Amino acid sequence: MSERVITVGLCGFGVVGQGVFNHLQKRENDLSDQLGARVKVTRIAVRDTSKKRDFDFDAAMLTTDPLSIATDPAVDVVCELMGGTTLAKEVTLAALKAGKIVVSANKALICDHGEALFAAAKEGNGQLLFEASVAGGIPVIKAIKESLVVNRFNSIYGILNGTSNYILTRMTNEGAGYQEILAEAKALGYAEADESFDVDGIDAAHKAVVLAYLAYGRWVPYNDLLVQGIAEVTQADIAFAKENGYAIKLLAVIDVAHASGKLYISILPTLVSKKYVLGSVDGVFNAVSVHGDVVGETVYIGPGAGRDATASAVISDIVDAAKLIVNGGAGRFIDPAPRGGAKIELAEPEEIESRYYVRLQVVDKPGVMAEVTSLLAKHDVSLASVTQKEVEEDATSATLIVTTHTTTEQAILDAVKALEASSCVEGKPFTMPVSSFEG
Amino acid sequence: MSERVITVGLCGFGVVGQGVFNHLQKRENDLSDQLGARVKVTRIAVRDTSKKRDFDFDAAMLTTDPLSIATDPAVDVVCELMGGTTLAKEVTLAALKAGKIVVSANKALICDHGEALFAAAKEGNGQLLFEASVAGGIPVIKAIKESLVVNRFNSIYGILNGTSNYILTRMTNEGAGYQEILAEAKALGYAEADESFDVDGIDAAHKAVVLAYLAYGRWVPYNDLLVQGIAEVTQADIAFAKENGYAIKLLAVIDVAHASGKLYISILPTLVSKKYVLGSVDGVFNAVSVHGDVVGETVYIGPGAGRDATASAVISDIVDAAKLIVNGGAGRFIDPAPRGGAKIELAEPEEIESRYYVRLQVVDKPGVMAEVTSLLAKHDVSLASVTQKEVEEDATSATLIVTTHTTTEQAILDAVKALEASSCVEGKPFTMPVSSFEG
Repeated sequence: MSERVITVGLCGFGVVGQGVFNHLQKRENDLSDQLGARVKVTRIAVRDTSKKRDFDFDAAMLTTDPLSIATDPAVDVVCELMGGTTLAKEVTLAALKAGKIVVSANKALICDHGEALFAAAKEGNGQLLFEASVAGGIPVIKAIKESLVVNRFNSIYGILNGTSNYILTRMTNEGAGYQEILAEAKALGYAEADESFDVDGIDAAHKAVVLAYLAYGRWVPYNDLLVQGIAEVTQADIAFAKENGYAIKLLAVIDVAHASGKLYISILPTLVSKKYVLGSVDGVFNAVSVHGDVVGETVYIGPGAGRDATASAVISDIVDAAKLIVNGGAGRFIDPAPRGGAKIELAEPEEIESRYYVRLQVVDKPGVMAEVTSLLAKHDVSLASVTQKEVEEDATSATLIVTTHTTTEQAILDAVKALEASSCVEGKPFTMPVSSFEG
Repeated sequence: MSERVITVGLCGFGVVGQGVFNHLQKRENDLSDQLGARVKVTRIAVRDTSKKRDFDFDAAMLTTDPLSIATDPAVDVVCELMGGTTLAKEVTLAALKAGKIVVSANKALICDHGEALFAAAKEGNGQLLFEASVAGGIPVIKAIKESLVVNRFNSIYGILNGTSNYILTRMTNEGAGYQEILAEAKALGYAEADESFDVDGIDAAHKAVVLAYLAYGRWVPYNDLLVQGIAEVTQADIAFAKENGYAIKLLAVIDVAHASGKLYISILPTLVSKKYVLGSVDGVFNAVSVHGDVVGETVYIGPGAGRDATASAVISDIVDAAKLIVNGGAGRFIDPAPRGGAKIELAEPEEIESRYYVRLQVVDKPGVMAEVTSLLAKHDVSLASVTQKEVEEDATSATLIVTTHTTTEQAILDAVKALEASSCVEGKPFTMPVSSFEG
């Protein structure tokens, strides 16, 4: 029996590309049983054709020109696994305009150019599938797009960067400082040589933008996000968290402000209750909590990165693409995020409410506590707790930690600015939200 | 513009049926945006046409004959939400043989008659979708079928019955006994008037059979499952769990025996480490942990029952059915579980390994501990811990709790039988597995 072949062109043959190639090949028969069609990689674009790879393949498939794959009429599904946002954008746009189904794991690309990509897909009757772009092997994109299709979304919370979660978990378990754990994470391969992308919240922010588009149909510009990484988290913060039943997580929050109904996205170190499921997701794991208005809360946990986990997600998209082609549903653009349709507005800092944690280094002299608390009161920030550990006799400054009742982001920004300017406070105060959910 | 209409016939208009009707209607425009087609309920089968319902609808849609909907050429998607396994089976078989796409939330039906239903679907080129049959609003069926399509499965663990989890959670938090909490759960609507289906593990077992089919392609007969409910769990067990860092969960285990590679399914009260994510899923929530050989472990948590959560899952299947019809992919049977294809064998009790917990009521006289430990040793069961709390001066018996090192299910069954027959032991010993995963 002659079986239909669905052809896949891989643009990029690094860690993930080779994982996709390997697992597609190993499970070719399983997938063919299910599809009634055979999925085969027929072309691979690489930068260096002479480089040694982990898996055997027919060298005749290689090209150094990914654009030739993007527009090759003999390629059904284009897999963009190159990374970067310049050539990757060119290749993805070309393929979508040519009416291809493109599978991408590239969150930076989709975050920065999602609007253009979906416009090109619409123009060319192509489709863009991107399960692997958020939370690696966890199928949260499909959950939001398909499983929760009848829902509108109240909020999405996510631990979206495995490297940051790994570092925070080890700082918590071992009592060691950020720099020490970061160095070990690099040595062990859990952090890149240039760690900034991960620990500064940039990677998590890219993913949050993609999730926000899916849930609310709006591309939020990166510059409108409030993003802070984990480099300023100290053992003082971790000790406070432990003593008070919290864990510190780099938490992405995609939420709608209560009063105004406007959208905001933040990626911030956050005190998360240990009683809440996200407070116990440790190590390199990712987790996403999705609040739908029909289903309630569903939570998805799993490996957020890694060759095989990412390949599993990429291949789920390739198989969906193959099904569409087999069923005759290809060649028609479907916007993954039309629900509601309205362009939701973005919230201003004075519309965003939370409880906050503030850590200050204060000079050790009379009147300091009065000064700090009156500065907070002046900005309408009301105290929930104050902690100052006993200091040594000869210390000249002390660490003061306050938590606040619910206030606005604008109020806390203003109050912290005023504190920073005060002669009682040394250096820059550190602040983070205290999440209210207990699950 | 004249838009295509996808017609849905609801067989059953109880709590879930009305939820599906309501949310489909409320989000008709959202869904139409996404589908390019309008999904409409056009017929509803009920037992009593005069009964008052929660939502307004056109009474002309009503019939008392669900079979007339199953074979109605004007109905595209048949939704079986009647419950039961007699008429529901007839209706589902008729619809599948007529080439319909059938959406079902009926785990008892699929567990008991899955093989016949899928055979009918194959014969008639129909399709059976059943997201809502396992874990309510949590999209775990789609995750296994589609998102993890390239994976073969090492194991699946699940908290699959919300009522049991609710009762165990309250027993743990409040220190109250099973009967007391059960009575309150009934009063609050968290348990049915006849609770046996939920608390005896039957409902969880139905769902485990469905998951096992999806993962391994084999319909395991209900009688081949090891099923025990939660009614025998006492505060002595809960106290032991708390003191040793465990929670007691009614855990469904779908696993492959190490040495033999054979499949087994059990639904048993189980000591689960609090460090493991499933050990912290409390209340009515369900959770499923899926171990795929490519992706690793992914975990899905959410509401396992309830009108709206179940409706969310049913509607995701209806929309998938509508997409298939719009794309032209309907009218072709697809087996959701062909991977591997081989008929995996079922493990015997001597092939299943675990650590176990055993609670005994022993008479308070010299030599008892020697007798108990030598009986266990005789069956090759080696002790990991022994706990006997100090008893009152005038007590005639004491509670003895032992945990074992890894042994086989057969060994523990034999050992417990011997203990029960011993004159040192009063009544029936209670035993449960100690799970080894820490996540």
